[in-house]
Amino acid sequence: MAVARVDPQRLNGTLESLGNIGSTPEGMQRIAFSPADVDGRQFVIDLMQQAGLAVRVDTAGNVIARRAGRDGERPAIAMGSHVDTVPSGGRYDGAVGVLGAIEVVRSLNDLDVVTRHPVEVLVFTNEEGTRYHRWLFGSRAMAGLLEPADLEAVDSEGVSMAERLKAIGGDMVRVSEAGRQKGELCAYLELHIEQGPVLHRSGIPVGVVTGITGRIVFDVRVIGAANHAGTTPMDARKDALLAASRLIQAVNDIATSEGMCRVGTVGMMTVAPNAVNVVPGEVGLGAEFRDIDVKRLEDAERRLNEVSQQIAAATGAEILVKREELGQSATTSGSLQDMVVAAAQRLGLDSRPIPSGAGHDAQAMAAITDIAMVFVPSVDGLSHSPREYTTPEACADGANVLLNTLLMIDESLD
Amino acid sequence: MAVARVDPQRLNGTLESLGNIGSTPEGMQRIAFSPADVDGRQFVIDLMQQAGLAVRVDTAGNVIARRAGRDGERPAIAMGSHVDTVPSGGRYDGAVGVLGAIEVVRSLNDLDVVTRHPVEVLVFTNEEGTRYHRWLFGSRAMAGLLEPADLEAVDSEGVSMAERLKAIGGDMVRVSEAGRQKGELCAYLELHIEQGPVLHRSGIPVGVVTGITGRIVFDVRVIGAANHAGTTPMDARKDALLAASRLIQAVNDIATSEGMCRVGTVGMMTVAPNAVNVVPGEVGLGAEFRDIDVKRLEDAERRLNEVSQQIAAATGAEILVKREELGQSATTSGSLQDMVVAAAQRLGLDSRPIPSGAGHDAQAMAAITDIAMVFVPSVDGLSHSPREYTTPEACADGANVLLNTLLMIDESLD
Repeated sequence: MAVARVDPQRLNGTLESLGNIGSTPEGMQRIAFSPADVDGRQFVIDLMQQAGLAVRVDTAGNVIARRAGRDGERPAIAMGSHVDTVPSGGRYDGAVGVLGAIEVVRSLNDLDVVTRHPVEVLVFTNEEGTRYHRWLFGSRAMAGLLEPADLEAVDSEGVSMAERLKAIGGDMVRVSEAGRQKGELCAYLELHIEQGPVLHRSGIPVGVVTGITGRIVFDVRVIGAANHAGTTPMDARKDALLAASRLIQAVNDIATSEGMCRVGTVGMMTVAPNAVNVVPGEVGLGAEFRDIDVKRLEDAERRLNEVSQQIAAATGAEILVKREELGQSATTSGSLQDMVVAAAQRLGLDSRPIPSGAGHDAQAMAAITDIAMVFVPSVDGLSHSPREYTTPEACADGANVLLNTLLMIDESLD
Repeated sequence: MAVARVDPQRLNGTLESLGNIGSTPEGMQRIAFSPADVDGRQFVIDLMQQAGLAVRVDTAGNVIARRAGRDGERPAIAMGSHVDTVPSGGRYDGAVGVLGAIEVVRSLNDLDVVTRHPVEVLVFTNEEGTRYHRWLFGSRAMAGLLEPADLEAVDSEGVSMAERLKAIGGDMVRVSEAGRQKGELCAYLELHIEQGPVLHRSGIPVGVVTGITGRIVFDVRVIGAANHAGTTPMDARKDALLAASRLIQAVNDIATSEGMCRVGTVGMMTVAPNAVNVVPGEVGLGAEFRDIDVKRLEDAERRLNEVSQQIAAATGAEILVKREELGQSATTSGSLQDMVVAAAQRLGLDSRPIPSGAGHDAQAMAAITDIAMVFVPSVDGLSHSPREYTTPEACADGANVLLNTLLMIDESLD
């Protein structure tokens, strides 16, 4: 079999165009359901239609673009990712997977290849979960993994996800119809930037993902008493921010000095009333732990609850820790991993096995099909940052591996 | 001289009406320049006009209401305070002083008293400084204490104070015209809730303020590196929020275990990008120290800078501490204090000397005239909180002391 190759200029041209949608001096702001996200989705839908794909939007707002296969009723090989970004995010997270998949289809068109299996390109709704804190929304809907909290979610502006979903063509009342059966797809492939430093440091251009990290997310409320910052004696305060600052240290300690899980982060915080002359009365925190071992996540959760009660007792503030979600870790298919390795070899590219420290739509899709992921290097390991960068060559390498892996799967699977 | 008395029902009726403007389940939201603040100002202007006062708005947006005096060209005796509130604030802070002063004028009308000196009621713009962090704006303008930063201030929505000032009848270009000369006023009296627990605990209804605390305010920027919360190893992070949490502890330590000043508070905080799955890249803090001794404030500032550099070195984050303002402490006039004590005695009310832990418009006015302040008890010492409360009796006591102090000043001053 000849080595198929994508068009690197064309791929990087689309990356540049999508990267201009929602771009600001403070980075990408293509937050799920925002006008920029809607524009990004439309840009991608236009590309899909130009490539001759049949495009539909399911009830979860996922974009599903299909290219017919040669042999009757075979299950489809799917490729996908997302176009939403975190606030002040980068141009590559998600975008490389979606545009890489579309470039693969355009290359199949150029090469006049009709695969045996149908091919699908999937764009999942609200992968990041910035809005509603219900991440992997679209892929979990497709995999039948939605929870009641997904259906009832309301954002900080008081707008329900149901309403925002309707605006992008979804329908929360019928969202279960977005679920697909095992057997409809025979594989799901996702190309993604590593978002960590391993490939960049090692100089190896292709990562073959061995598994995807588990993640536990908490919403923490710290309730003290708002009071005047000038007249309230230090020993008569219940300062919610002071208590919260200890909790931030504790989350860090659990992942570092206590070594209970791989990483722990407090990424989000709101303070009320948030005025310089008022002792803070209430603080909200968004915290998370990640580890491939879910048992360690549960241990870290127990420890967080324990420390929270100690801080509450010491400060007089009330602390409520609520588990928002526990994302199971996922393993990738061994045979698909082998095909990724072989595809890279065929292209003359070194590859190495690598665990994924970030969560991805692929981990939800693992519930209904075999999955594989291809990583390309993030310069300096930066991601979820305006400085996120992956070279044009690396993006093309990833798309080439995706194309050749797809062709191998198409050849070998029955 | 007979003991004059205000109408307690009428006073508490106006307090209730003003308290309904900008009231929410989360407390008062009469933030300076907001629609609720504008409505509150209009409510007060209407009351002034009904009381027969000549009302004007100066170029700093201050409302100045004047009642003519009997004897030609005497300087005026002024009373005043503010109607803006902190976010989620209370119904008494500021309002008691403004409505108490108006009630004094209405009582003079009822009693057919024409004072020798003109009487003025002053409502100062943006006392709290919630918006623009330029507190005591109106009173500093009247006292000629504005700084260049006041004139150029822009709020978090990108709107200049000049623009908002125009909307309430002020004019930033001519704001210096709001300044008044020494000699125009012979005294400034301010009735206010204590906002602390001293009077409430002691059961004494009247506080005679001996001096007003000094205050130093800082804007602190903590700059780390935003990065992916799942893939960035703990030892490769520059977590701005983790560094900021140490700084919050340090501000507390400076005022407690290190005992360098009376109180220290971090009341405000913003986190960017503020997403649960992103290591925080930048944090902004609003911090302050208060003490009657300005030298101690400067020592606390030195210590804050020192600790910030230690935290920066330990965490890799950059920390920029900028002094936003240093509000000098102010002393009240001894002879005016004596008259407040005598007025309380005349009414059969116990009084006690008390320092003010909060800042007030009076401290700016001290630059151009003698000042005195009357405190009434805050139940449980709560203020800048929806639970702020002062009893109707206490409000009436305060207005009665204000009225009788005014009459004594009018008698005794030349």
